[in-house]
Amino acid sequence: MKGIWFTELQTKGLTIGCEVKKVLHREKTPFQEIEVFDTDIWGRVLVLDNAIQTTTKDEFVYHEMITHVALNTHPNPQKVLVIGGGDGGAIREIIKHETVEKATHVEIDKGVIEAAKKYLPEIAVALLEANPKVEVLIEDGIKHIKEKENYYDVIIVDSTDPVGPAEGLFAKDFYAAIHKALKEDGIFVAQTESPFYNQDLISKVYRDISSLYPIAKIYGAFVPTYPGGYWTFTMGSKVYDPEKIDTSKIQAFETKYYTPEVHKASFVLPKFVQELIKK
Amino acid sequence: MKGIWFTELQTKGLTIGCEVKKVLHREKTPFQEIEVFDTDIWGRVLVLDNAIQTTTKDEFVYHEMITHVALNTHPNPQKVLVIGGGDGGAIREIIKHETVEKATHVEIDKGVIEAAKKYLPEIAVALLEANPKVEVLIEDGIKHIKEKENYYDVIIVDSTDPVGPAEGLFAKDFYAAIHKALKEDGIFVAQTESPFYNQDLISKVYRDISSLYPIAKIYGAFVPTYPGGYWTFTMGSKVYDPEKIDTSKIQAFETKYYTPEVHKASFVLPKFVQELIKK
Repeated sequence: MKGIWFTELQTKGLTIGCEVKKVLHREKTPFQEIEVFDTDIWGRVLVLDNAIQTTTKDEFVYHEMITHVALNTHPNPQKVLVIGGGDGGAIREIIKHETVEKATHVEIDKGVIEAAKKYLPEIAVALLEANPKVEVLIEDGIKHIKEKENYYDVIIVDSTDPVGPAEGLFAKDFYAAIHKALKEDGIFVAQTESPFYNQDLISKVYRDISSLYPIAKIYGAFVPTYPGGYWTFTMGSKVYDPEKIDTSKIQAFETKYYTPEVHKASFVLPKFVQELIKK
Repeated sequence: MKGIWFTELQTKGLTIGCEVKKVLHREKTPFQEIEVFDTDIWGRVLVLDNAIQTTTKDEFVYHEMITHVALNTHPNPQKVLVIGGGDGGAIREIIKHETVEKATHVEIDKGVIEAAKKYLPEIAVALLEANPKVEVLIEDGIKHIKEKENYYDVIIVDSTDPVGPAEGLFAKDFYAAIHKALKEDGIFVAQTESPFYNQDLISKVYRDISSLYPIAKIYGAFVPTYPGGYWTFTMGSKVYDPEKIDTSKIQAFETKYYTPEVHKASFVLPKFVQELIKK
């Protein structure tokens, strides 16, 4: 094959590659290496430590599904927190909800936010200008969570893979601190990797979340740039069941993946994934 | 990266790669090149013309979803035809249905069947020994279809990509011949590629099938070894609506992906896929 190619080792023995038209940015921050480049196949691509984080072609799937499922399960989400997700895509979706008064964005690496604002403005759109609904904090999400109690309606952990800077974001004591930071009817959601390649992680997170919340559920979405193309999210909810929402009450706004029907169908798990979370 | 790697150009500018432990078979037939090798990540892999067809790790998804959705939509499928699918995985699933009297397998390339029987016996299990329910015909599927009228209950087109030997299996006159070969309440289903990378094909096939059948629907499944990991199937049905099946009447047998709930949820399409099939 001719040309310049980016290749990601998605997991041991497995790669995904794309032809690169132009490299726009390369930077080593205290936390990780950031790369941004243009491709024909996926549009503009953000890479952290050689792992694809988001692309302008498919980012809508991940960002809609990590936000709207929880926000439409909660009847009145006002204070919403995103930990990680420096590209701003989750924040962009959250502030579409009229009930939201404050979307707080806690990102440990300022470099990711700056790169997204410069190179991915469609994704970082909510961070580009001052917005009274949006609060951006450059700090450690774990520290932020430990300082809050009975405060947030929805907490979203939009982390990188469970290695390097994000490792602590998959730990049980972090999940316990999140539970405390949520209000009495709060909802937690996290991205929890691939059911084909990260089965032990999915089982562990589900066990941890089940031990903290009366309602613990996994849902999935098609994300072509992540390993296997099948991505899971794990939700812990203190009161509201995401499968029992009244879809007629969902606020209508423009989406490209999420619909009320997709919301419900995303909780229907293939048999082998059901088996992963049987104890 | 060390070691020996297989790399597939999945579409222009996009590759998937896996580390190869051992190459077991390479052969050029009059129709295509066949390769079989072992990997840690996907188990044993069957490749035709450098495109992954099936692996022992994820074959259950594709083979269960291309068969059971149609067979459980039809109340009494007796005569079932598979065109293509030389590995035998679809036939293996079809004969789990007690109503099926004859599963006819029409494959143009004997080499694929022979390689599957030798190297993929778990997948080709229904082809290994004579079985009164299974009929294997080495011939052109297009020719076979043209000779039948009002004959099959379910016809499944388990083709390779729409280039090379399979190109004619995506043509409208072939679909019209299938419609004629089906009984008055027959069902057709075909694999129809990725909604991320083959949008024009999906729109075209849906239009063609809609013009032939009163009920035309697309459903999806997570197939990690196919481009984007999100695979579609298009169904044309003369009478029975796959979304209105009585799931309590579904015959129970062992599956790893399909469940009655997955059957229904697989028809819920993300918004961008719904848009593809609006006229």
